[in-house]
Amino acid sequence: MTELKNDLLLKALLREPTERTPLWIMRQAGRYLPEYREVRAQAGDFMSLCRNPELACEVTMQPLRRYKLDAAILFSDILTVPDALGLGLYFEAGEGPKFERPVQSTAQIGKLAVPDVSETLGYVFDAVRTIRRELDGQVPLIGFAGSPWTVGTYMVEGGSSREFPIIKGLAAEAPAALDSMLDIVARTTTEYLNAQVEAGAQAIMIFDTWGSALERDDYLRFSLAPMQKIVDGLTRQNEGRRIPVILFTKGAGVLLKDMVATGCDALGVDWTTSLADARQYTGDKVALQGNLDPATLRESPEVIRQGVADTLASYGKGPGHVFNLGHGVTPDIDPDHVAVLVDAVHELSPQYH
Amino acid sequence: MTELKNDLLLKALLREPTERTPLWIMRQAGRYLPEYREVRAQAGDFMSLCRNPELACEVTMQPLRRYKLDAAILFSDILTVPDALGLGLYFEAGEGPKFERPVQSTAQIGKLAVPDVSETLGYVFDAVRTIRRELDGQVPLIGFAGSPWTVGTYMVEGGSSREFPIIKGLAAEAPAALDSMLDIVARTTTEYLNAQVEAGAQAIMIFDTWGSALERDDYLRFSLAPMQKIVDGLTRQNEGRRIPVILFTKGAGVLLKDMVATGCDALGVDWTTSLADARQYTGDKVALQGNLDPATLRESPEVIRQGVADTLASYGKGPGHVFNLGHGVTPDIDPDHVAVLVDAVHELSPQYH
Repeated sequence: MTELKNDLLLKALLREPTERTPLWIMRQAGRYLPEYREVRAQAGDFMSLCRNPELACEVTMQPLRRYKLDAAILFSDILTVPDALGLGLYFEAGEGPKFERPVQSTAQIGKLAVPDVSETLGYVFDAVRTIRRELDGQVPLIGFAGSPWTVGTYMVEGGSSREFPIIKGLAAEAPAALDSMLDIVARTTTEYLNAQVEAGAQAIMIFDTWGSALERDDYLRFSLAPMQKIVDGLTRQNEGRRIPVILFTKGAGVLLKDMVATGCDALGVDWTTSLADARQYTGDKVALQGNLDPATLRESPEVIRQGVADTLASYGKGPGHVFNLGHGVTPDIDPDHVAVLVDAVHELSPQYH
Repeated sequence: MTELKNDLLLKALLREPTERTPLWIMRQAGRYLPEYREVRAQAGDFMSLCRNPELACEVTMQPLRRYKLDAAILFSDILTVPDALGLGLYFEAGEGPKFERPVQSTAQIGKLAVPDVSETLGYVFDAVRTIRRELDGQVPLIGFAGSPWTVGTYMVEGGSSREFPIIKGLAAEAPAALDSMLDIVARTTTEYLNAQVEAGAQAIMIFDTWGSALERDDYLRFSLAPMQKIVDGLTRQNEGRRIPVILFTKGAGVLLKDMVATGCDALGVDWTTSLADARQYTGDKVALQGNLDPATLRESPEVIRQGVADTLASYGKGPGHVFNLGHGVTPDIDPDHVAVLVDAVHELSPQYH
């Protein structure tokens, strides 16, 4: 394996000292970049792009050519896992993801089984290997998956949802069946992430976009417990290095206190909780990643720089901060504004180390 | 004025002892009721219903005929205030509220002025008087308005929004102009609510649906500070009784700690914060209203009863709890399920008093 030239991200995720705050940006490979839109048009639909290792590698690399980022993140989607479970993922123009065969009853849950990930998700591991080769040790590669609860909302509702009526119905009326579905998703996700690590992913992030739609007891049972199973089953060491694990429940707030106990290395934080508060909730036991409001990228360079300065100051001195947005960069953002953010982190963060 | 026969709500909001937990339901007058849909069809569009005091009174009374509720809430909309400010509110089928003349620049903000509410919003005060007459002291009537920030998001974005790009732009680039717009909304809202009280509203609730989309410092400046101005300016005594004020920022979480200091009497809580935690955050200084997940109303009677039991137990013993959902009842709910909830609160709550 090639030597890693920039290991700031891995060090910060393990709360080891660094000379400045490393950064990457959620959805850094995405629609705000004209070069991404070109490749996407070439690939056809979104899943064809995910399934083509060369093109997935190309869009993964694009933001690194523009910006001094400290990590690449695999270009893929959290819904590859339920697709591998046989639900039939498809995208309708302007409508977001859909499933041909959603799972809405105890009987349908009973038919689910953990698939052979090397067979059903091999295209992802091919992409990871291609990206690692192309990165050539420039920065580490982050692999990822969705949390079982978040993935489960799409599996049960059949697509995007705002109120989650069907899965909340299962949680209330057939909680053991829902546990069992989430267990299958968790076991599949564990194998999926371990295969990403084996293929070359150097850190792992689990995205839990919808956990905070639950009341706390249900969050603990249906969102955090399945994530815990994944953390417990993950390969934590590869190529002679520890593989850090980041959990991110959007809107977690004080739930961050509960998340620390999973044994993860880092927690993602959105902008509705200040990093100062998050640091207090987590008692410096884990690293924190975040948390500028993505809306800030629409503003002037002065406002973006101030936002970066405030975010760095809120975390304060010491190791353990990975700069990021509090959620993904949106398609309407001017790529030059992202450059302002990246430069500001490089310029303003050394004083905190 | 007629004597109030059931003052449980007013007592609980002031943390005075009651023999059981009073309850009402956000959006209790609404589309889940067939008799509402009939009146709505008769009125034509939504605003015609709001502007017709007889019909607004009729739909306000409908849920009280079905359920043993402890309050009526004025049937109206939070966007009557910006309509009175001259923005031209209209509703497009299936698209939600829109404004003909959104306010998106410092120059447009400069042209806003506090209107004569008796002239522009007289139809609301007529509705309040009509409802009070019809209630005949059965239960108290809650008046309400939106928070300036929440109302401001519609004024600036021109309608519903998920990311609030334009108003967040103002907050970042022209914060003093946004302060000044929110000040005009706050002053108009104060006059509007005081006129509701004068017409007969016996408690006041301020709905802040979108405050929690802000990071904390911005929440304090753009959402909480304008609500504070309203609380400071409100008539707190009428007909020989105190007029309790309830603030509700959806998704407030630990922001509840900041909200207590406004001098409000009660705080609304959504289901993502347990009442036990909310009680700890607020140190029993205010009453709490909430917080069953509205999704629970889709479930079986057993699950609804258990949800009520858990909510009551989470608040625990002592005065100061008003039972409610954590957000409005949705149009798809079976009215019989609401009856299960209401009966469960009557049956299960006395043991906590």
